[in-house]
Amino acid sequence: MNDYIFGSQPIVEAIKNNASIDKILIKKGKQSESLTKLIKERGIPYQYVPIEKLNRITRKNHQGIIAFLSAIDFYRIEDVLPEIYEAGELPAIVILDSITDVRNVGAIARTCYSAGIHTIIIPSKNFARIGADAVKTSAGALLKMKVCRENDLKKTVSFLQENGIQVIAASEKAADDYYNIDYTGPTAIVMGSEDKGISQSIIKSADYLVKIPMKNEFDSLNVSVASGIFIFELVKQRLR
Amino acid sequence: MNDYIFGSQPIVEAIKNNASIDKILIKKGKQSESLTKLIKERGIPYQYVPIEKLNRITRKNHQGIIAFLSAIDFYRIEDVLPEIYEAGELPAIVILDSITDVRNVGAIARTCYSAGIHTIIIPSKNFARIGADAVKTSAGALLKMKVCRENDLKKTVSFLQENGIQVIAASEKAADDYYNIDYTGPTAIVMGSEDKGISQSIIKSADYLVKIPMKNEFDSLNVSVASGIFIFELVKQRLR
Repeated sequence: MNDYIFGSQPIVEAIKNNASIDKILIKKGKQSESLTKLIKERGIPYQYVPIEKLNRITRKNHQGIIAFLSAIDFYRIEDVLPEIYEAGELPAIVILDSITDVRNVGAIARTCYSAGIHTIIIPSKNFARIGADAVKTSAGALLKMKVCRENDLKKTVSFLQENGIQVIAASEKAADDYYNIDYTGPTAIVMGSEDKGISQSIIKSADYLVKIPMKNEFDSLNVSVASGIFIFELVKQRLR
Repeated sequence: MNDYIFGSQPIVEAIKNNASIDKILIKKGKQSESLTKLIKERGIPYQYVPIEKLNRITRKNHQGIIAFLSAIDFYRIEDVLPEIYEAGELPAIVILDSITDVRNVGAIARTCYSAGIHTIIIPSKNFARIGADAVKTSAGALLKMKVCRENDLKKTVSFLQENGIQVIAASEKAADDYYNIDYTGPTAIVMGSEDKGISQSIIKSADYLVKIPMKNEFDSLNVSVASGIFIFELVKQRLR
């Protein structure tokens, strides 16, 4: 995965044509207001970097801006949710908050696809790059699923709740055990990173906080293992 | 983890003093019968290799034999099982059959320790090296648990069954779903590799074969994720 495009005009065209862009690097100090506005509007991750970094990527005339294309297409939850309801399905959604390990993201996507999760929602910042490695670790699952990328996960949680979906957040500090919650209604499960957990703002707005009860409290579980336990509790309750 | 010893006499001494040996490399053609007998008796993994391979490891006088020391101590289930019963505990055991990915072994060990699994049983052949990488991925769990290494997992399964332990093997081809089995009695869960699954001889002797029901049958789950689902089903049933 070394696919990238460069130069302001080609990048504007790509964005307007809904090309799937993983990340945009912009030379420090360069500020084309219209382009920056467009990038922000579309929720594309971007970063200001020294010109040397851009020069190391390509020696061609990059004009201070390079965009990396993604291995998959990204969707918006506003578009995906109606499709789930229209198909007569009971939404089962997984939200991943700031998980930066590519292999964990791949393993979770593989679990989600096996379990029939309708969509995975990821944030546009602080997240693993969805490149060839993530696709490989997912055993191809990332190519078969709709992944939504959102600017503001807190707003996404509110949107889901307004649309009748209960939001269940995994937290080691929760009082409830994960298997005491009813997952048979429309449900979104939120998982956070192993070190930082889920953002406080999402913890506060979730409908339920649940934990996996441990015998030995030495360390949290691997996040892909923990995700599998939650996701298949949902599958089991719905099958029964 | 580059700790190794070499030469017949030091290795014989190490074995007799119960040093924890991960693997022994022996020069092709060299056959000290007494040493080979000792290695086999103790169930230490060994392999015949060209002398060039030994020369690449050390230029010292290795006498055609090099032993790698393990990052952890290995136990025998005959010794560990009585300890579990004597402590008044209900055995919860995990058997790993030919899992060669170090990161999966580490993640499974982490899950086992969190869940209060009493011991992990691994085979002496076709298994990931329990070195520094496995310990790191396990977040240190491998240093806190007793890992049993056995020559013949089929015999181990028989031994467990004779001692009142039900053996539940994970198989995608099973008819029963994993959550329809009672894990509240003494239980061993067997997990196999993602590509080959569990050896046929163990499949045949297991008390129950169980599967995780999938919505999309495109590929099996990652083995550490699948292990987590089985192991926490056991935890949940015992807590309730």
